[in-house]
Amino acid sequence: MTRRIALDAMGGDNAPDEVVAGAIQAVTALDVEVVLVGQPEQLQNVDLEVVAASEVIAMDADPARSVRTMKDSSIVRGAELVRDGKADAFVSAGNTGAMVAASLLRMGRIKGVARPAVATTIPVPGSTPTVLLDSGAIAECQAEWLVQFALMGSVYTATRYGIARPRVGLLSIGEEPSKGNKLVKETFPLLSELDGINFIGNVEGRDVMTDDVDVIVTDGFTGNVVLKTLEGGLKAMVSAVFAALGTEAAGAEGAAAIGHLVPLAGELNPDSIGGSMLLGVKGVSIISHGSSSATAVVNAISAASELADSAIVEAMTTAVSLANHDT
Amino acid sequence: MTRRIALDAMGGDNAPDEVVAGAIQAVTALDVEVVLVGQPEQLQNVDLEVVAASEVIAMDADPARSVRTMKDSSIVRGAELVRDGKADAFVSAGNTGAMVAASLLRMGRIKGVARPAVATTIPVPGSTPTVLLDSGAIAECQAEWLVQFALMGSVYTATRYGIARPRVGLLSIGEEPSKGNKLVKETFPLLSELDGINFIGNVEGRDVMTDDVDVIVTDGFTGNVVLKTLEGGLKAMVSAVFAALGTEAAGAEGAAAIGHLVPLAGELNPDSIGGSMLLGVKGVSIISHGSSSATAVVNAISAASELADSAIVEAMTTAVSLANHDT
Repeated sequence: MTRRIALDAMGGDNAPDEVVAGAIQAVTALDVEVVLVGQPEQLQNVDLEVVAASEVIAMDADPARSVRTMKDSSIVRGAELVRDGKADAFVSAGNTGAMVAASLLRMGRIKGVARPAVATTIPVPGSTPTVLLDSGAIAECQAEWLVQFALMGSVYTATRYGIARPRVGLLSIGEEPSKGNKLVKETFPLLSELDGINFIGNVEGRDVMTDDVDVIVTDGFTGNVVLKTLEGGLKAMVSAVFAALGTEAAGAEGAAAIGHLVPLAGELNPDSIGGSMLLGVKGVSIISHGSSSATAVVNAISAASELADSAIVEAMTTAVSLANHDT
Repeated sequence: MTRRIALDAMGGDNAPDEVVAGAIQAVTALDVEVVLVGQPEQLQNVDLEVVAASEVIAMDADPARSVRTMKDSSIVRGAELVRDGKADAFVSAGNTGAMVAASLLRMGRIKGVARPAVATTIPVPGSTPTVLLDSGAIAECQAEWLVQFALMGSVYTATRYGIARPRVGLLSIGEEPSKGNKLVKETFPLLSELDGINFIGNVEGRDVMTDDVDVIVTDGFTGNVVLKTLEGGLKAMVSAVFAALGTEAAGAEGAAAIGHLVPLAGELNPDSIGGSMLLGVKGVSIISHGSSSATAVVNAISAASELADSAIVEAMTTAVSLANHDT
């Protein structure tokens, strides 16, 4: 069935232009309806349905306060459309913390979930991607929350990437159960005893971009640091490779070789990923990269539509409920 | 003056062969003396001075227990040579935790230092490197310890890389002082008030491989995760680049282009870095990568010799003492 996706027209560094461009591409290329949420005066002459929201939460605004005080902001209104059944999913490239807070408050938390988590996809060249969570919703975490992240991340990875029994690893600084900080040492035995997931033990930073693990569980501080470190490292590396091949010494051979690297650069580009999902809320809430291009917006809308089709929220609700009854 | 460097002949994945090969190259190429520490039966026919140590601490052994019980291990004996003034520095590619414990117990802690930290160099293509600490000595840290890491890291970066007023950043998940976990939020105001360092505020994972910061301060858990994430990410990327250029489609152009990337791969190779220094102990203790090649050993010996020449331990002692009297 055709899904109806609410899109924050005001969210992200390139809003509204790139966001609107992405929305128009999406309705042309995909079997979706898109509802733009934002300031009508910024969205004139756009041939898409618009739900008015007079306020915009800035990228660096305080999330909790913004969501509390800016009730007519595009992020709050978009989350309400999902709550009210007027949209099947909500996509925003805006303030991540505000998306977390608005989704929690307006869509509501899945019963039994202590804290939500942002699940981010990390591309692995030549292999299935790795899903990392929490990648930034909750900086300070408790062991029990990480256990739920493992459950929810497992359901998400199976649903989104069709991986039957995703291998779940706990991010630490050594493979042995004795390695890590206090949080990791407390979480390890809980994950070992947990039914319903395929826990493979501790994994390390060097495993993130390999085919050795499918879901990596960590607190939101470490997860966000990992994500941004990789982003910066790969960017530095891509620049250095292109610079080396673009030199006079490399000549025509170098310039020609760059062409062969373009698909790889595309594979590693965050725009290809289709956004991160906020797990633990009663609705499909997709957080796209702040610097999203029109292509990123199309991919996020596509992911949102597929996830709405998959009944993932129901699957996650069941998984969390079963685990809570076991303990 | 010619420095005398003690080298753990038994440490690392490629010991003793690569380590011995590195030692021989070092005494040929550099103005240094090298003393091998290890099992004499493994070091026969080597034309270098050997200090006997009958035991070897395994790479995955429990550090504290090993150092306590294996008094005749190469790591413990090497640290003793520095303590006794029989060597100017000690280099090992062995068990990092054991190097930390043995250096602390045998060389002793600098007066006023609460905890030591491993300072690791991260290469930045086309720029000065970034020094990250703690990269794995102490998983669970307190704010006051991070303040000392900032001081010691600043002295180290100035001494080793000749950067006059190194920019010190606190690793977090947003630039604003309000962003981060509990530890970061507690540390930020302390660093803001600290004299003697050039604190530039919070930095993020994406800044690690840029020229925007010289010293990054974090706890040993996060630091180690960052380091290994970068290592794995860059490795995946290098493989993918070489694979793309090595395909039939890329042909001769691709193969030729690979040649232009070799210097870059060398720059990013951990073997080029010359090891990490353990800061906070009364001696030059250099921890080399576990998979060190002979080249890595040469570079670590060279760094050890320069650091011994620089009177860095004295400079660090003064910096910590001044800061402790200020507060």
